[in-house]
Parts: sequence; structure tokens; C-alpha cells
Amino acid sequence: MVSGKAKKELARIFGKRLKEDLSHRIAYSFDATRISYPPELVAFPLKTKEISLAVKTAAEYKFPIIARGSGTGFSGGAVPVEGGLVLSFSKMRSLEIRKQEMIGIVEPGVITEELQHEAEKYGLFYPPDPASLKNSTIGGNLAENAGGPRCLKYGVTKNYVLGLEVVLPDGEVISIGRGLQKNVAGYDLISLFVGSEGTLGIITKAYLRLVPKPPIARSIRADFKNVRDASTAATAVLYSGILPSALEFMDKESLKAAGEYLGKDISADASLLIQIDGDEKSVNSQLKRIAKVLKEYRPIDILVSTSDEEEEMVWKLRRSISSAISKLKPIKVNEDIVVPRGKIPDAVDFIYQLAGKQSIDVIVFGHMGDGNIHVNFMIEKEQSESASGAVEELFKWVIEQGGSISGEHGIGITKAKYLESQLGERQTQLMREIKRLLDPHNIMNPGKIFS
Amino acid sequence: MVSGKAKKELARIFGKRLKEDLSHRIAYSFDATRISYPPELVAFPLKTKEISLAVKTAAEYKFPIIARGSGTGFSGGAVPVEGGLVLSFSKMRSLEIRKQEMIGIVEPGVITEELQHEAEKYGLFYPPDPASLKNSTIGGNLAENAGGPRCLKYGVTKNYVLGLEVVLPDGEVISIGRGLQKNVAGYDLISLFVGSEGTLGIITKAYLRLVPKPPIARSIRADFKNVRDASTAATAVLYSGILPSALEFMDKESLKAAGEYLGKDISADASLLIQIDGDEKSVNSQLKRIAKVLKEYRPIDILVSTSDEEEEMVWKLRRSISSAISKLKPIKVNEDIVVPRGKIPDAVDFIYQLAGKQSIDVIVFGHMGDGNIHVNFMIEKEQSESASGAVEELFKWVIEQGGSISGEHGIGITKAKYLESQLGERQTQLMREIKRLLDPHNIMNPGKIFS
Repeated sequence: MVSGKAKKELARIFGKRLKEDLSHRIAYSFDATRISYPPELVAFPLKTKEISLAVKTAAEYKFPIIARGSGTGFSGGAVPVEGGLVLSFSKMRSLEIRKQEMIGIVEPGVITEELQHEAEKYGLFYPPDPASLKNSTIGGNLAENAGGPRCLKYGVTKNYVLGLEVVLPDGEVISIGRGLQKNVAGYDLISLFVGSEGTLGIITKAYLRLVPKPPIARSIRADFKNVRDASTAATAVLYSGILPSALEFMDKESLKAAGEYLGKDISADASLLIQIDGDEKSVNSQLKRIAKVLKEYRPIDILVSTSDEEEEMVWKLRRSISSAISKLKPIKVNEDIVVPRGKIPDAVDFIYQLAGKQSIDVIVFGHMGDGNIHVNFMIEKEQSESASGAVEELFKWVIEQGGSISGEHGIGITKAKYLESQLGERQTQLMREIKRLLDPHNIMNPGKIFS
Repeated sequence: MVSGKAKKELARIFGKRLKEDLSHRIAYSFDATRISYPPELVAFPLKTKEISLAVKTAAEYKFPIIARGSGTGFSGGAVPVEGGLVLSFSKMRSLEIRKQEMIGIVEPGVITEELQHEAEKYGLFYPPDPASLKNSTIGGNLAENAGGPRCLKYGVTKNYVLGLEVVLPDGEVISIGRGLQKNVAGYDLISLFVGSEGTLGIITKAYLRLVPKPPIARSIRADFKNVRDASTAATAVLYSGILPSALEFMDKESLKAAGEYLGKDISADASLLIQIDGDEKSVNSQLKRIAKVLKEYRPIDILVSTSDEEEEMVWKLRRSISSAISKLKPIKVNEDIVVPRGKIPDAVDFIYQLAGKQSIDVIVFGHMGDGNIHVNFMIEKEQSESASGAVEELFKWVIEQGGSISGEHGIGITKAKYLESQLGERQTQLMREIKRLLDPHNIMNPGKIFS
């Protein structure tokens, strides 16, 4: 509970940018999980100093403080489950590209795609590309250590962080890492904050590594008669010695839904989408080699993008799946499991069998190259229990296979109760101790990660 | 002090593989800094279980325990400054490549080059390449988060770690990360242990990410009339939109010494060594573009490697500098500072002026592409004070420029007293608190990182 006295302090910090009307409280109560807990207050900081003061107030009066980007997260990371104050970063969007240093200096409210477009103006490239990149913020990407298709070749968000400014849970501001290309002075605090879902501190600025933009990117879409052929072909491509920038899988329903969403008629039982980037000649020769590999797995059709427009269109299709399928059923229970690469075909089989057994619909797509598969149980409200059972069984199987319950969405609230079954008691305890060390009053995004 | 009772316990664990004779104690007393503190005991574990038992014994009887690879470190990380037990990993060298998963599973005693060669047999590639790769171990590389020339394009050791087995300071064994390509279940403990210099736990196994081996690698060596031309040309190459796999700088003395070491006559005032890897056509076209850029900075000579043998030779030259210059003077005070890329030419100027002012010799080479410069003050014993003064002044300047006192060698003992001036009080304190949380009895490699 934010006391009256605390509210007065906050009003002094934020003035009219502190809101407690119902419409703000509802608008900032949920994320893409649609789980909703209204905060007591929402504030729109303009600078780090204000956040530092707000956190000091939260530390003094012991109320929860939750940083929020665009609310596109899939695990409830930004949902204020224990009330308190939500800090929206929508007014902190400064963005500077330093071409000579090959870095981007961003505030957390910058939209992922904005950074990518700005970098491209300088011939530079910011690889991480979560499907929500047109809406998601860098702050959210950092909090969840976001992935995306291109992470197959380029690595995830944390691989691009060279420095962070962080407001600690007592309000002190530290600057970690200095934006240098290399730095081994002491423990790696950057990686501790990235992916910590706002539970250890609030990131207020980031120095991000950029790389030269590859001259071109082109993709193959290969359609298959069945899922097994597609998933086996995917592993064969990975073993061929070429590292695509992306290797994605889409099943029948995800293709159909995305096609309808974009006003196109697409029907295939399973599709792979494989992107190569680099010099034109090298891209073309690699695409040819991949096509040859794919042909051994009886594809129905192989399409290659031949222009930037076609390339953009095929990825628009891929990125629209998540929104498109949301319209098919009242509830989408969305998981992002990971299995070792060799177990991809087994995982896909297991998921369909599991859904069949529980008599619920399932849509499968995702980053097959990483072994990171998005499993969407599509249900009516009354099927919630069956879906929970399926998720539990899925996670149990994934953990037994040496996999992970989250590849890029984070743990948040939806996966908190499964964390320990993956990590074991000691590792979970160690993480809890780190949380307690940094945030002894448990004011930073409480109720997340740990059950 | 290791008590008699504790020794008995250790003898029970290691049998004849526990040594306390003087020759072992001296052999394991120093690293490449030549700083020497003999341990009381040296043990040669065969498996994790033995390490776990040894750490339990250390926790019970409160004596220091120091993990050691080949002792090639440049900051004293493996030097047992407070005595105790050294664990040598020379008998833990199992190495398995899983081609299908594109991972290497290694014990810490595996030599870096061994892993690279084994990966290449499967068409795979382990990029991190510290200059000591023929001797250094993966365990040491992980402890120090080692770099190397190729880190310019490929990133440092930590970017290749997908999983770790760690013996915690109470002897419990945890397995972190599962060797998956993507995994965001909880805080990033992998990055906490990598680069922690054995102060938080002992890494006993690692799952390392491998990538497809680039078909070829070729290099340009460009010689210049003076250092300023070379360093300005280096930044120009970086701004040209090409990301070389390596961009190295060598000054006159380092070239000369390395040439003599290899029995070759090489003389130039400054040289750049720039490597491009990838498809043959793409490599050749990029080399041409780089040569064009270099020509604007008045090079005396430009040489391009045209075969794998020539390529190996040019890099052998680069890697031999560190050993070669060691013979020039009784003491080599070796630093590895980092500056923002744009400040490279200024840094090189500053270093020569500083050495001139103190009347000591200096040899400069290193990873110019990363802004990571190896500064070697070459001195007689009686010049130690002048060298210390130069180091202090150098670090002060580097920190003022937004740089770092260590890019890849770690803090160890030699840089511990400067850490706080770079990080500030709060960040250093936070790291100390993490150390205390994990290792309350301060038995894991005590006396390192923090002064």
C-alpha cells in the first residue's frame, strides 16, 4: 500500500505526471498475458533523477515499484501483482548512435525497431529482434533478456549490452560497464541486471553494441507435407555447416492464421523460414546449399525472397503469427520452451500428442534453430484446467529432456512455480539470496520469478 | 594454514595426488606475472567429486583453495597469496564435441587450442583466442573471461558459455544453464561465475557454444612510418562498415622482438594486422576494400596472406610478441587497458609520452579494434618505482577517458588496488557483498580482485 504521505512525496517528484485515476490504473494493470492487477499509481518519469527519488521513497515507505515498457511481455513481468507504483518509460526515449564507437546509447523507453532503424542510417545493425519489435521497448527487452529469430546467429539481448545505468533498490544510481567493447574489471554486474525482470534494480540507460549492417538478407520458405519432415529438415540444415541468421518453424494453424491476418491465402502443413545474411554472392551460394539440403526432406514448395520488399513481407508473416492466432480462441496459453537441438522433432511430436490427449487445440511455431519453440494452447475459458495440466506435463517433459521452461519470455508470474523444478533447490536459493542482498525490502517488482 | 587434521582429510581424498614437497610448492607458486607465493599443498583431482570433498574440507578447516590452469595469467589470478591448497586441473582434460548440438563439453584442464582443433575436425569453430592458447586452459579462460584478437568480431569467452558445473564454496555441486542455446530461467549465474577469477566457486565443467567454421581466413599486414598513422588508419578501417575478425596493432619494438624470436627480420615503426574470415569471395572483396582504406594513411608496405600457411605464420608472429619481449629486460610490467575506440590514437600518444617522462622503455601492441591495448613497461629491477608511478598515471588517465584498467587479463592481485577508482565505491561494495554471500569464510582464492 502506498500511504498518503508517500503519495505526497511522489506528487512532489512527478507533479502532474503522477496518475491515480482508474483509467490509468487499468491501462497499466496488464501485459500480453492479459493477467491484470491494477497498480495504485502510475508515474511518467522524464529522467533518472526522478526515478532515483521515487525508489528512495519506495524504500522509505516500503511499497512496490514496477518498471514498465510497452507491456508486450508474455510472462507477466510488468504486471503489478502487489499494487504499488508503476513507472512507465514512455517519456524516456532518447536515442543516440555513436557511429565511431559503434554503440547506441538509449533510454529504456526507446522502441526496439526505432533503435534498429536509427542504427541502419549509420550502416549499423542491432540484431536482437523479438517479434514484438514494433511495440516492445529496449527496457523491456533488457529486463527479460529478449530473443528473436536472429538470435540464432547473433545471440540474445545480453550479448549486446556494453554498459548500464541502474537505479539500485535504495535509490542510488550506478553506471556499470562504461560502454566499452571489452572490460573485465570485477564481477559481471551487467549480466546480473539483464534478464532480472526489474527485480534487482531499474535500468535507466543502456550502452548497446552495434555491428556493421550485413549488405543483404534473403530467406527461403519451404513448405512440407507434415511436421516431422519439416523438423527433421530443420536439424539437417543446422548440421550442414551453415549458420543461418534465422531458422524458424510455423505449423499449419499458425501459417493459416498469419495468412488471414495479412489477407493472404497460405496453406501448408508445416513451413520452415530460413534467413541468410551477408554479401550478396555469399548469401546466394548459401541459399542454394540450403535448398539442396531441404530437397532431401520432400518439401512441397520452396520459395526464395528476391528483393528487400519480399524479404520484409515474409518476416511480416512470421511476426504476425502471435497477434493473428490470439483472435482464434478466447484464451491463448503461450509457452516458450527450449530443448537441445537434436530433440526438436521429438518435442514437436510430444506437444501435439499432449494437446490431443487433453482435447485442446495447440499451435506451434518458433525459433527451431535454437530449439526454442512457442507452444500455444488455444482454449475456451472452461478448458483452463486442461491447459494448466498440459503446461505442467509439458514442462516436466522439457526438464527431463535437459531443456528449459523459458527461452526468451522470462519467468515472471506465469512460470514462477516451475522454476525450482528446473533449477533445483540450491540454485533457486542462491538466486533468492542475491535478490535479498540487493533488495532487502522486496520493493522491486515483487512477486516475480520466485513463487 | 592447513592444519594437520585437514591435511589428513585431503590425503584421504587425493592419495598420492596430494603433494607437499618443495618442488611442487614452488612450481605452483607463480603465474606469468612471476609473482610468487608458495601454497602449502598441491592436489591433482581427477573428478568433480574430489573437488567437492576438498572444498568441504577447506570450508570446515578454513583454509584457502585456489583453482589453477596453466598459470599463463597476467594479473596473478592463480597465485596463492595466502597459501592453502592449489588444485591443478592438469588431469581433468576430457573433451567431447557434440556436432549435432554444436557444443563442446569440456573439463577445465583442456588446453584452449586442443578444443579449437577438436572442434575443427567437425567443421566447427571456437572463436576465443587468447595469445597463450597453446598453453592456457579453458578453466583459466573462464576464470578470467579471456579475450583475444578474434573477440573483435566474435565476442569474449563468456559469450560462448551455455552451461557450467560449479563447486560452490561449501562444496555443493550445481549445474547451471544446461548447455542450451537459449535459456532465461532466473538470474544469469553463468556470467556471475565467468570472470570471477575463482573467487566465487570452482568451475569443473563447461558447455561451450561452437559455430560453423568460416571457410577461410586471410590477413593484411600494413606497415606504417609512425604510430599515429597506424592508429588513425585502424580507426578508419573500423568506420568503413567492415567488421574484421581481428584488428591488431604492433609497435616497432614488439615487431622487432617477435621477428627475432621467429628468426625473421622485420622492421617497421608500426604495423596493423587485420583479419577477415568467411567465404573466399567475400573475404577477398573485403580485403580489397580494407587495403583501399589503409592506402589513405601512407602505409610503407601492405602484405596479404595468400595461403593457410602464410596466415598461420602471420598470427604466430603476433602471438609470439608477449614471450619474445619478455627476454628484452628483467621485468615486464604488462597492462591491458581499454579506451573507447575513438580515443585509440590519443591513448597510444599518451603511453609513449608517459614512458618518456619516466625514462622507461615501453612496448605497445594489442587489440586495437576493441580499444584494448597491451602496454608493457620494460624495466630493470631498480626502475620498479618509476614503473609503478607510470602504471598509476596510466590508469588514472584511462579511467578519466571512460576506459577500463583491464580488457581481458582480469584484476587478480596486480590491479586490485585500482579497482575502486574505476568502479566507484558502491559498485565495488556490491561486488564484495556478492563475494561474502557466496563465500562467507573467504576460502575461494582469497586476496584477489578486492584490495
